[in-house]
Amino acid sequence: MGRWEPNAQSRLRQAAMDLYAERGFDQTTVAEIAERAGLTERTFFRHFADKREVLFAGSERLQALLLKSVAESPLLSEAAAGPAALAAVAAAFEVAAADYFPPVEYSRQRQRVIDANPPLQEREVAKMDRISAALAGILRERGVGDLAAALAAEAGTGAFKVAFTRWVADPADGSLLGHVREAIAELRTLLPATA
Amino acid sequence: MGRWEPNAQSRLRQAAMDLYAERGFDQTTVAEIAERAGLTERTFFRHFADKREVLFAGSERLQALLLKSVAESPLLSEAAAGPAALAAVAAAFEVAAADYFPPVEYSRQRQRVIDANPPLQEREVAKMDRISAALAGILRERGVGDLAAALAAEAGTGAFKVAFTRWVADPADGSLLGHVREAIAELRTLLPATA
Repeated sequence: MGRWEPNAQSRLRQAAMDLYAERGFDQTTVAEIAERAGLTERTFFRHFADKREVLFAGSERLQALLLKSVAESPLLSEAAAGPAALAAVAAAFEVAAADYFPPVEYSRQRQRVIDANPPLQEREVAKMDRISAALAGILRERGVGDLAAALAAEAGTGAFKVAFTRWVADPADGSLLGHVREAIAELRTLLPATA
Repeated sequence: MGRWEPNAQSRLRQAAMDLYAERGFDQTTVAEIAERAGLTERTFFRHFADKREVLFAGSERLQALLLKSVAESPLLSEAAAGPAALAAVAAAFEVAAADYFPPVEYSRQRQRVIDANPPLQEREVAKMDRISAALAGILRERGVGDLAAALAAEAGTGAFKVAFTRWVADPADGSLLGHVREAIAELRTLLPATA
């Protein structure tokens, strides 16, 4: 980002989100996004590959953050059993929830755009599925058994999805971290009584 | 299905799967599928909306079966708490695993086709996500709280996805039901030690 384009990326992101909300995702062009942001198309393409990437550019960084957290998790330092695996995944999502996400109003706006467009919904779901698969892979590298790794990744990612959905729908503006902690705690109550 | 077209649907399905495996999904036409099955295109379209539906036609029936099972589950007859919700979802997937799925060799063939084609992968993932959302909905109708319903649906569906993946990858030809039971049992071990 040049000195003459302060906050270009966030201006482009907000301009895109406003236009997607006003006109619909399919009806918005990159030229319009750039114009709304007071920037050039060339600047847009320095920050995003296409108009869809404005919505999903963060997911690679999210995945990298989660994988790093699990790769370095002290919870997995000894016998890497299933409970430690789920705890490590939960802790990674808590770190991400605390540090990574934009303000709730932006996330809500993004969610409305995605909810209105089935191909974007499929992409969002596929993105979370890839994150789950990547988490299972790093758990296996840390010595967790194949089945436990896959289940811990699925359960933890599923709990995060539920928490995220509740966060963007929550009129009380609770924190994402609060929702993640609540979901993980509730997940823990689902199992023992029927074990 | 007319008397003069015995097993037309399963013949079309197998012909499609063989062609998708030989040529790739994108390179196969409905005309070729019908010809391979010894049937007309018109017959194909009586059974499937398009060539993609050959792969996914079963998912509505699977979803209906799961919803019916949870809607009628005796596990939810009293206080519909989280553990009962997960147990009901697990039982529904066990019923489906026992009764619903085609032989493993067909499922393996289908999986190879899907694994080779990212848009089909996204559709498969989206299909399971819709099943999870529908299960959460029926649990809420049965009186389960919003958060517990969403988490039980996600955890149960996630365990099923893991079991299904292991089933089609399992060289020992174990039963899908066996894999589902193993995954649910393992899921139950993930939580207590870190509760």
